[in-house]
Amino acid sequence: MSKKPRGRLFFANPGPTNIPDSILHAQAHHTVDFMDADFIALYNRCVDGLKRVLRTEQNLFFYTGSGHAAWEASLVNLFSPGDRILIVETGNFSESWGRMAKGLGLDVQTIGAEWSTGADPAAVTAALAADSGRAIKAVCCVHNETSTGMVLPLKAIRAAIDAAGHPALLLADTISSLGSLDFRMDEWGIDCAVGGSQKGLMLPTGLSFTGVSNKALEVHKTSTMPKHYFSWTNMLTRPHKSFIGTVPTSFFFGLQEALRLIHDEEGLQDVLARHSRLGEAVRRCVQHWSGNNGPQLYCKNPARYSDSVTAVLMPEGFNADDIRKTALSRFNVSVGGGLSKLGGKVFRIGHMGDLNEPMILGTLSVVEMALKLNGVPHTPGGVDAAMAYLADAAKAN
Amino acid sequence: MSKKPRGRLFFANPGPTNIPDSILHAQAHHTVDFMDADFIALYNRCVDGLKRVLRTEQNLFFYTGSGHAAWEASLVNLFSPGDRILIVETGNFSESWGRMAKGLGLDVQTIGAEWSTGADPAAVTAALAADSGRAIKAVCCVHNETSTGMVLPLKAIRAAIDAAGHPALLLADTISSLGSLDFRMDEWGIDCAVGGSQKGLMLPTGLSFTGVSNKALEVHKTSTMPKHYFSWTNMLTRPHKSFIGTVPTSFFFGLQEALRLIHDEEGLQDVLARHSRLGEAVRRCVQHWSGNNGPQLYCKNPARYSDSVTAVLMPEGFNADDIRKTALSRFNVSVGGGLSKLGGKVFRIGHMGDLNEPMILGTLSVVEMALKLNGVPHTPGGVDAAMAYLADAAKAN
Amino acid sequence: MSKKPRGRLFFANPGPTNIPDSILHAQAHHTVDFMDADFIALYNRCVDGLKRVLRTEQNLFFYTGSGHAAWEASLVNLFSPGDRILIVETGNFSESWGRMAKGLGLDVQTIGAEWSTGADPAAVTAALAADSGRAIKAVCCVHNETSTGMVLPLKAIRAAIDAAGHPALLLADTISSLGSLDFRMDEWGIDCAVGGSQKGLMLPTGLSFTGVSNKALEVHKTSTMPKHYFSWTNMLTRPHKSFIGTVPTSFFFGLQEALRLIHDEEGLQDVLARHSRLGEAVRRCVQHWSGNNGPQLYCKNPARYSDSVTAVLMPEGFNADDIRKTALSRFNVSVGGGLSKLGGKVFRIGHMGDLNEPMILGTLSVVEMALKLNGVPHTPGGVDAAMAYLADAAKAN
Amino acid sequence: MSKKPRGRLFFANPGPTNIPDSILHAQAHHTVDFMDADFIALYNRCVDGLKRVLRTEQNLFFYTGSGHAAWEASLVNLFSPGDRILIVETGNFSESWGRMAKGLGLDVQTIGAEWSTGADPAAVTAALAADSGRAIKAVCCVHNETSTGMVLPLKAIRAAIDAAGHPALLLADTISSLGSLDFRMDEWGIDCAVGGSQKGLMLPTGLSFTGVSNKALEVHKTSTMPKHYFSWTNMLTRPHKSFIGTVPTSFFFGLQEALRLIHDEEGLQDVLARHSRLGEAVRRCVQHWSGNNGPQLYCKNPARYSDSVTAVLMPEGFNADDIRKTALSRFNVSVGGGLSKLGGKVFRIGHMGDLNEPMILGTLSVVEMALKLNGVPHTPGGVDAAMAYLADAAKAN
Repeated sequence: MSKKPRGRLFFANPGPTNIPDSILHAQAHHTVDFMDADFIALYNRCVDGLKRVLRTEQNLFFYTGSGHAAWEASLVNLFSPGDRILIVETGNFSESWGRMAKGLGLDVQTIGAEWSTGADPAAVTAALAADSGRAIKAVCCVHNETSTGMVLPLKAIRAAIDAAGHPALLLADTISSLGSLDFRMDEWGIDCAVGGSQKGLMLPTGLSFTGVSNKALEVHKTSTMPKHYFSWTNMLTRPHKSFIGTVPTSFFFGLQEALRLIHDEEGLQDVLARHSRLGEAVRRCVQHWSGNNGPQLYCKNPARYSDSVTAVLMPEGFNADDIRKTALSRFNVSVGGGLSKLGGKVFRIGHMGDLNEPMILGTLSVVEMALKLNGVPHTPGGVDAAMAYLADAAKAN
Repeated sequence: MSKKPRGRLFFANPGPTNIPDSILHAQAHHTVDFMDADFIALYNRCVDGLKRVLRTEQNLFFYTGSGHAAWEASLVNLFSPGDRILIVETGNFSESWGRMAKGLGLDVQTIGAEWSTGADPAAVTAALAADSGRAIKAVCCVHNETSTGMVLPLKAIRAAIDAAGHPALLLADTISSLGSLDFRMDEWGIDCAVGGSQKGLMLPTGLSFTGVSNKALEVHKTSTMPKHYFSWTNMLTRPHKSFIGTVPTSFFFGLQEALRLIHDEEGLQDVLARHSRLGEAVRRCVQHWSGNNGPQLYCKNPARYSDSVTAVLMPEGFNADDIRKTALSRFNVSVGGGLSKLGGKVFRIGHMGDLNEPMILGTLSVVEMALKLNGVPHTPGGVDAAMAYLADAAKAN
Repeated sequence: MSKKPRGRLFFANPGPTNIPDSILHAQAHHTVDFMDADFIALYNRCVDGLKRVLRTEQNLFFYTGSGHAAWEASLVNLFSPGDRILIVETGNFSESWGRMAKGLGLDVQTIGAEWSTGADPAAVTAALAADSGRAIKAVCCVHNETSTGMVLPLKAIRAAIDAAGHPALLLADTISSLGSLDFRMDEWGIDCAVGGSQKGLMLPTGLSFTGVSNKALEVHKTSTMPKHYFSWTNMLTRPHKSFIGTVPTSFFFGLQEALRLIHDEEGLQDVLARHSRLGEAVRRCVQHWSGNNGPQLYCKNPARYSDSVTAVLMPEGFNADDIRKTALSRFNVSVGGGLSKLGGKVFRIGHMGDLNEPMILGTLSVVEMALKLNGVPHTPGGVDAAMAYLADAAKAN
Repeated sequence: MSKKPRGRLFFANPGPTNIPDSILHAQAHHTVDFMDADFIALYNRCVDGLKRVLRTEQNLFFYTGSGHAAWEASLVNLFSPGDRILIVETGNFSESWGRMAKGLGLDVQTIGAEWSTGADPAAVTAALAADSGRAIKAVCCVHNETSTGMVLPLKAIRAAIDAAGHPALLLADTISSLGSLDFRMDEWGIDCAVGGSQKGLMLPTGLSFTGVSNKALEVHKTSTMPKHYFSWTNMLTRPHKSFIGTVPTSFFFGLQEALRLIHDEEGLQDVLARHSRLGEAVRRCVQHWSGNNGPQLYCKNPARYSDSVTAVLMPEGFNADDIRKTALSRFNVSVGGGLSKLGGKVFRIGHMGDLNEPMILGTLSVVEMALKLNGVPHTPGGVDAAMAYLADAAKAN
């Protein structure tokens, strides 16, 4: 079948995510002067609303750039060449962030962990305790590891750092968790929270940001890493206290609408509850399939299941990309592939952002058909298991 | 739950239908002069493309109006006060068309039929044969009865008219069939085909049209019904050979894109095949539910199953509107209600226009959950039955 | 130059009008069920907001149709075959409405008038006084005659009817005045106000409506004209108290935004003041050109200048369509042509709806260049005259 | 007047620029997988089309970022800490690029120049000839200085470098020239051309890029500047040969449409000719105003007039920002302000991107009214001068 299937594309690739029409239309705004008072007022409302999502009352810097830009901003603003940082291994994205840090000249120490079970916070305490010279400047964590569908308990990491009595900063990548999973920057003592537009905020790719604690802003002053486009010091001299150069006004018309949907139309707590409900439905479905040597949840640690993305491990001898190809080419459903060492071994179902029951059930139905069409062993009825859970959840409300 | 559920609305109400983004954006066109040569060229391409959907090489008149406007146009252009027409009963829409005809002063004779099994073409032959005075000016048929999910075999109706050797015109309402079901205006000898923008053409409501045979255009000349806005004679004096007054240019930017999707991107035959596939999937699902005294297909005549809409009859003692309410308020799925005497007794699933497997499976999943949540008896697993069918259909391609 | 000029099309054709982006995007809304409670609430807000534009507290009926549909609706709902109506001649649109009335079987009596100076209300009193048999059922007036750029003083017409002590209804076509010129349905005793979406309401073509007085609604009950799609009696049985058949939901998402712009963002009085200011600027420009045997205002009656459209009479021997062609093909400005007997003799500049000073000055600049390029005599500097007026007007605020 | 003026905003601020509706709508595309084959094909077509605008057959790297991101990318990819670069002074943007280079640890040598007359290429030859140790790694030029409305003749700069027999690279900022002014990367021997989405390409802010010569790509291999997000080496390992992290798919749907407008609808040569025509019209207007001690062209060097932006110098004692404020708050026209040392002294009229005669004449009309309203001395009739020129230009075609 060389033709495109009709109907709406189901985008269940874990990021970017579906963009609601109202955001698409808001962002399709004619150009305005970013120095215009009306725009600055709108911009300031967006800053306030996004801080409410981050749950911080501290500092926020925006970047015209993708999530990787915000990663880089966090590193170049806080560190100096040769500084050591401690990265907690979670999967492809902890690897990538570490690779970026090395590329920028930092000394990267990694707390190794099995991707499917996750790191032990005690190992963080141990590593910091062993760092008597206080060489470690920061602990870097990916809150929600998009490649594995696992969450790292940031509160526990904060406790682990405190237990070591170590002054290291705590950096958290919240790219695939913010607006989907519970995240509390100030309460959890996050010094730098890295986020992007294209996941739980339901915007196109191209705007990213960092929440920055007052402590981190102090540390920044000592950073000697060369920087300009990402420099917080430079940004603080600008009218928007963000951005070097032109402000990407379109994104703020979109962001304003996204924040309206999150805070005013649904409410942040209900947004999180919905992600929790849909995430559990996906897992019930996969757990059902897993009988009969079927595909299973890649994550072996139920305490760390992600409510925004689920990685599904294929049975030995079957390629995850065949499932993806069938789903996309025959049924117009886009599912994510395995990253790094998981290539071909897992496929990933994104369930973050603007999503509801029929969207997720339509997606699961297609995946179950794709398993069948590819002769992958599984216990049929996964969709029924998801429906049973969702119906019960609806009853409970 | 008073709040709106999030995620995309699944619009499975049998008309209007989902509008693809590309059509929404094409139609959101700035205003142009409808007398501008560029616009007239675009308009003429739309006329040609729509004739290819109607499968006619005869005449086409557009109306700024809904489907009911085109109904009225067909009546006021072809008849004179007191003229008799023969309406083949199919359901709510044959009733409504007849009521309109009576309201306009026509003499309406009805071929009665049980809504769930459908009229017998032989009855048409009989009625016409009995009309020795040739008082009957036309036979009016709703090709696809949206209230019952049944098709009337137009080819057989044409044969029935011919069998009677009667000169009556054949009028067909194709509102919920065009672009979804096989329809062949010229081949089947349809004299007036009534269509609207908001179903298989995937446009917003507000543009409608009639395909008109040369024979009908001759008959029109004798019509004395008062008319102006809908008058074909008036229209033929205008540059677009349609419209009295301002031409609704926006719709033609949308229609151009719709025709591109139908003819160029998918192909009309594939559009019809997709409707057939998705319609059968819905029926497999409902037939599965029907076990255990569950809801069942309202249509009892398999030869007349509609591939664009399915009416589902509730078990005695259960109200269809409860299912609709649950689906909409909890899961953001809009399903149609029962019309006329079927109010509360059936709900209707639209499966026409821009639709694919995950959209229909997401819809069916939600309906199955709504049955459960409302305590309606049914055999669970309807979605599985639909999936089994659709997977097989995909394999066969 | 066969290629399209770039940049934005300046649409200065007197209707349809420029559609603001925010309306285009609002109207590009996904399909919803028109029976859904949320939609009905939005619909009802639109009814209320539109009544505030019409300045009525009486009845409102919508039509899926263009302005001509609302014309027809006013005629078929209020009259019976053979009824006499009195049409006050204003120009092409009074002619057209009269032609429609005749086509529908009414007896049309016309108060003749010179198009460039306008009818005398005293003639209405005289005609009604002469109608001792009360055969005249209504006086029909085009409030703003789009073909000539003249206003008919409705308040004076009402006084003229009252002076005759005649019970005739007063019908007013407000299509090119509503939302642009002062109009007061209840205060002026208008019994039926005919309006459309595509002018001062800044929407696409396809939605029209009539404000209907309680008196007219009583008269309606006696009307025997065949009707169904436009029937108020039918509409009153429907949940929206309007529309036969599918409700065109898209238009109401657009209308909601239009009403927000009119009432909340600018304010109706400021909308009217802006039209008055821009209309006067256009006239100052044309009056300047008229020196040196240049083009002049077609309207010879300053008391009746229209603030929403200006017709410009060409000097003898020059064709208005040459100006239009130059403006469009070389400069992307669309100006209206002469209608009926004014074809080729006038061009028309629309200045209604979403318009501001630079839009109108850009338009006038292009027209002045087109005069020059076509060798049409005129006094250069018309744009300066418009600028002088507009600068003074800005100073005065 | 605290309220927003109505009608369309005229955005005559020299960047970002007006975005055509068709680009806004194309970019408002639902999310797709950036690894999807269909998207990669579209992406590759965009690469080809943009190379045709750059007039290069060499290398192209994209960045999710604004123009400043591409500036930074050019510096961090080509140089090593302490490297010396030669910046030709042109105005605010040569200053800013230099400041960025210093901030990143480069040794910046500047060829000073009076902003209103521009640098002498001979000074480049002299500076390079004096650099016997070949310490200078590159000559950096802003092709079109947006703060002054002046062009730097890149071909002459290339000749000046060659005349010195110096191997320095030639970097050119084409942000406000590309797609507006003649630019020929390969022919003129540009080694790195820095561009952004938000000017001549008529897109929103957020996508930027560098054309890179093969010679520059070789030099890149020796660069030791820390980098990751902007690293070409990293990019070359990625499927798109650009981007670290998520690809901003929306922009490519927009870019595809922009390239269609440039290459297919208008043609690049006609685009440039249009900019030349409109730029000259603006200058004729300003030159007219300048009589009577009025505002004048800031640029004193006619050979270097910019066809994409004009800076207008206020008479002594008058603040340019008053003009801007009047234009925006009363007439909805956004004009740019003076940058750096020109703050308050000049205002700037952008005339790049999707622009035509009525847009520019509407803008100039409003500026002339603002001069009058603010009591700024000037010779009235500037708009007439622009019209006279544009009418002649139209005649000549």
